[in-house]
Amino acid sequence: MNGKISKSLSVENAKELLNSVDAFLFDCDGVIWKGEKLIDGVPETLDLLRSHGKKLVFVTNNSTKSRKQYAKKFHSLGIPVNEDEIFSSSFAAAMYLNVNDFPREKKVYVIGEEGILEELEQAGFTALGGPADGKKNIELKSDSLFEHDKNVGAVIVGLDQYINFYKLQYGTLCIRENPGCLFIATNRDAVGHLTDLQEWPGAGCMVAAICGTTQKEPITVGKPSTFLMDFLLQKYNITTSRMCMVGDRLDTDILFGQNAGCRTLLVFSGVTNESNYEDLSKEVKPEYYTNSIADMLKYI
Amino acid sequence: MNGKISKSLSVENAKELLNSVDAFLFDCDGVIWKGEKLIDGVPETLDLLRSHGKKLVFVTNNSTKSRKQYAKKFHSLGIPVNEDEIFSSSFAAAMYLNVNDFPREKKVYVIGEEGILEELEQAGFTALGGPADGKKNIELKSDSLFEHDKNVGAVIVGLDQYINFYKLQYGTLCIRENPGCLFIATNRDAVGHLTDLQEWPGAGCMVAAICGTTQKEPITVGKPSTFLMDFLLQKYNITTSRMCMVGDRLDTDILFGQNAGCRTLLVFSGVTNESNYEDLSKEVKPEYYTNSIADMLKYI
Repeated sequence: MNGKISKSLSVENAKELLNSVDAFLFDCDGVIWKGEKLIDGVPETLDLLRSHGKKLVFVTNNSTKSRKQYAKKFHSLGIPVNEDEIFSSSFAAAMYLNVNDFPREKKVYVIGEEGILEELEQAGFTALGGPADGKKNIELKSDSLFEHDKNVGAVIVGLDQYINFYKLQYGTLCIRENPGCLFIATNRDAVGHLTDLQEWPGAGCMVAAICGTTQKEPITVGKPSTFLMDFLLQKYNITTSRMCMVGDRLDTDILFGQNAGCRTLLVFSGVTNESNYEDLSKEVKPEYYTNSIADMLKYI
Repeated sequence: MNGKISKSLSVENAKELLNSVDAFLFDCDGVIWKGEKLIDGVPETLDLLRSHGKKLVFVTNNSTKSRKQYAKKFHSLGIPVNEDEIFSSSFAAAMYLNVNDFPREKKVYVIGEEGILEELEQAGFTALGGPADGKKNIELKSDSLFEHDKNVGAVIVGLDQYINFYKLQYGTLCIRENPGCLFIATNRDAVGHLTDLQEWPGAGCMVAAICGTTQKEPITVGKPSTFLMDFLLQKYNITTSRMCMVGDRLDTDILFGQNAGCRTLLVFSGVTNESNYEDLSKEVKPEYYTNSIADMLKYI
């Protein structure tokens, strides 16, 4: 939809969109919730779409949780969502190793949180790092060598609230010194709504730090990369032109939707708002924009 | 010297270099020492150059120490060096604020170590952050707001062994939310010899992390920026073509020397070695290269 003029969602085009789409793909942070707070009108909107026979899929770049943990979060917020309707970047990272036949005898070093570890474990991989390395300190001493596991064949970097010098050195050594070691980014979001009141550094922060030390670029498996779309298409027999990607970020959600050939709807309930939209939308333009997905309730 | 063929230092060209140069500018990590260990033959080489009437200047991107702390380190290693012969990136950061009339009533947030704080204090600026924030944890809670000082007018980012999520969020908020807030990088070295046995993440790691969250590029005051050269030229009445920059890094030291119009000598005693030299020297080529500055002893 690049180059075309974006339109505000309205009674007319919302109905056209509903009729021409079989599946809605939702980002979560800033669309469904902000931190632990549900955005107003979301449960009713999702119910309405389901009642119209639409498939709902949740595609999140936030790697701190596994699909199982996300399903729990949805349930605790009163929204019934199945694990297999959730596609998180933590899952994407494990699936990337899977489809690329990453050897089971090799290990994976994780700069990130529990979600990545859980997905790796579930996929049968051996993971190191993650929260366990969050409290490790380094004492720089002459003659003492920082050792790393030569059997690490991939470093996965995601959002990590417990980022420290130990993890940065460990990940860097694996990528620089282990021959063929993969460098995988769950995503590169600059910031995200970890709490409802403000934004916090996103995975893009930790990934950039490792790019800075290794002078290498990662393979990105989350949005806007279309890696996850292959899984979606395998699972649901729907053509991408009959999917609508709904998100709050132009550079991940809307770009992801466009890269895959989906319809796109930007919502102002997260990172992008009416006041920064003009500035941010110079390169990527959504087909439609509106305040919140709850507007669909009003229009349909 | 780009485009020209680099030459190995020899008896003939070492003498020519000595005769046509009035000042030698030395990088420290990987040239004078590795971590806390002096590189063999360094004191004798420096003595020889001084005995030939050469001015010696030490230009280091390592911001963890102030000039005063570096002078102490030189003395403890048995090399008499005065504070005013040392130009560190910690000093450069403070001087950048000074020459740009940074208001004294504003504050400076530091992601970095003691050296930056000391230089800021000596220059009369008020600094926040640094080591004091190294043990601060964040508990992400709904409804709790992470507050930052709206009076911070500059964020300085350097090498920080105690990097954490707190500092990343603090620095990001200042740059994103305080109008006109400067983002200053002491330097962008990817890695450095913090210990003699191996390399560690450099300031380039922490700077990239903040670029990742803010989506902004910093002002870099260390090498290869020529900002420090202005101070050198003010202090010493020498034309840059009669200076020789000696360093172990092509992308900082040698580029700095070339940007300023100096002669250049690359040494293989640090980050660059004979085996990675071919790969690394595609874009930046030194005029001369040799194993260590101690080779000058042999040739002169």
